[in-house]
Amino acid sequence: MTPFTDRLADAVRRKGPLCVGIDPRLESLPKSIRENHPDPAAAFEAFGLRILELVEPFAGVVKPQAAFFEQVGPAGFAAMQAILRRAKAMGFVTILDAKRGDIASTATAYAEAAFGPTWDADSLTVNPYLGRDAVEPFIETARRDGRGIFVLVRTSNPGASLFQNLVCEGRPLYRHVADAVAEWNGTVGDVGAVVGATHPAELKELRAAMPGVWLLVPGYGAQGGTAADVRAAYDAKGLGAVVNSSRGVTFPFQPDDPNWEAKVEAAARKAQAELAISR
Amino acid sequence: MTPFTDRLADAVRRKGPLCVGIDPRLESLPKSIRENHPDPAAAFEAFGLRILELVEPFAGVVKPQAAFFEQVGPAGFAAMQAILRRAKAMGFVTILDAKRGDIASTATAYAEAAFGPTWDADSLTVNPYLGRDAVEPFIETARRDGRGIFVLVRTSNPGASLFQNLVCEGRPLYRHVADAVAEWNGTVGDVGAVVGATHPAELKELRAAMPGVWLLVPGYGAQGGTAADVRAAYDAKGLGAVVNSSRGVTFPFQPDDPNWEAKVEAAARKAQAELAISR
Repeated sequence: MTPFTDRLADAVRRKGPLCVGIDPRLESLPKSIRENHPDPAAAFEAFGLRILELVEPFAGVVKPQAAFFEQVGPAGFAAMQAILRRAKAMGFVTILDAKRGDIASTATAYAEAAFGPTWDADSLTVNPYLGRDAVEPFIETARRDGRGIFVLVRTSNPGASLFQNLVCEGRPLYRHVADAVAEWNGTVGDVGAVVGATHPAELKELRAAMPGVWLLVPGYGAQGGTAADVRAAYDAKGLGAVVNSSRGVTFPFQPDDPNWEAKVEAAARKAQAELAISR
Repeated sequence: MTPFTDRLADAVRRKGPLCVGIDPRLESLPKSIRENHPDPAAAFEAFGLRILELVEPFAGVVKPQAAFFEQVGPAGFAAMQAILRRAKAMGFVTILDAKRGDIASTATAYAEAAFGPTWDADSLTVNPYLGRDAVEPFIETARRDGRGIFVLVRTSNPGASLFQNLVCEGRPLYRHVADAVAEWNGTVGDVGAVVGATHPAELKELRAAMPGVWLLVPGYGAQGGTAADVRAAYDAKGLGAVVNSSRGVTFPFQPDDPNWEAKVEAAARKAQAELAISR
């Protein structure tokens, strides 16, 4: 199988760096979808599948957020499975945003879920707090057939600095995690990093600290990061990063808006154009 | 509703500090269960429900591990749901070991899943790497109706030190996390900490650093921690900690052993006795 980052680079060359996050929130869904699908999980599935069709011209990468699907129970996971399958069939590169992390054989179970028949995702977000033997099983399982992971390095949320920015042995904690990511990626490849758009100076620093590492950049759009803020994420060829927008692209409407689909298309087109200009 | 830690204390007073981890591994399940339940998720459910019955006299707390259920797909989550429900109905205090962590509204979605109708767990393990606004939604959702969380502080795996033991501004990273946990618990209560049995000196240090905080201590049994190692986790009243054993109690047999149930009972009885002596 083609290595994960080669497929990611191909998607970015074709459609630009926009990654569309699929974070279904029941109270925000179009009223028409709620009416046609009274069951929350069925509504999530219908919405997610329609989003795939609407954003397909503008984005090559999609990122379902596991938390929202988990919230509606086992049927929600079946909906997430259906969306991941359809996305793959349509040619999207998929990132399962589940931020998993656990020790040794348990990490392997999560990785088998992510890359095996359960989710069959191209990549997974991974939390590094548990350390070396909590991350390496994900890397090993991913590399078996051309999948990848994105390790959380510097997240986009306002409270992230509590631990991530502690100065440890001369450098912020996030730099220690970045060094480990650069080492893992140098050894086996296909190990990326999550670095938020909401801290542009740190994004620049981390781009330099992890040469060759693909970045997944959340925080663009609704969280406040701009196209200018994310410019530092790309490498000299305009590759090396995908930029996620969830609410900004998928919820630019009120639930009772009959023209919600046109608004999603317009938001995705605008994000694609903004991010293209920024390269 | 009675506060989470009051219910936990009651369980420990009645049955001792043993927490039985339910980590079903397909290749380790009793052959008889595999034969009667060819579907992996159905086998996990049958095994988990039988484990609840077998360990009920010896443990007041059980901890399903989400990774293994996720590995067998959406039906696996339905099996985990059935096990959590039965455990609650039988009077166990439940800990959902999912190590969740995400930003703000996404953390709320995970918390609603854990404490709402999806899992209806008494408590959840939470990863602190994303910082303040990634942990506080779990605390807020938990306290609404007497649930709790256990924040990962010092995990039991060999590679945990890579980041957790970095010296940050004069103290190891895990101490910074411990201070945040002590603060959160002091403010709202029902915030516990995960501290591995495999580092007895650090367990002692962290017991002192987090007075009044309930500890979930993994690493006893199959991972190498002994009853003597976990002694430091208890407070002066012999409360303040639950000690988890997964493989040691639930898989003390070969798959083709017709007497596997008697071996599980014997292992649970032995663990209960060992941990009672250690108090």
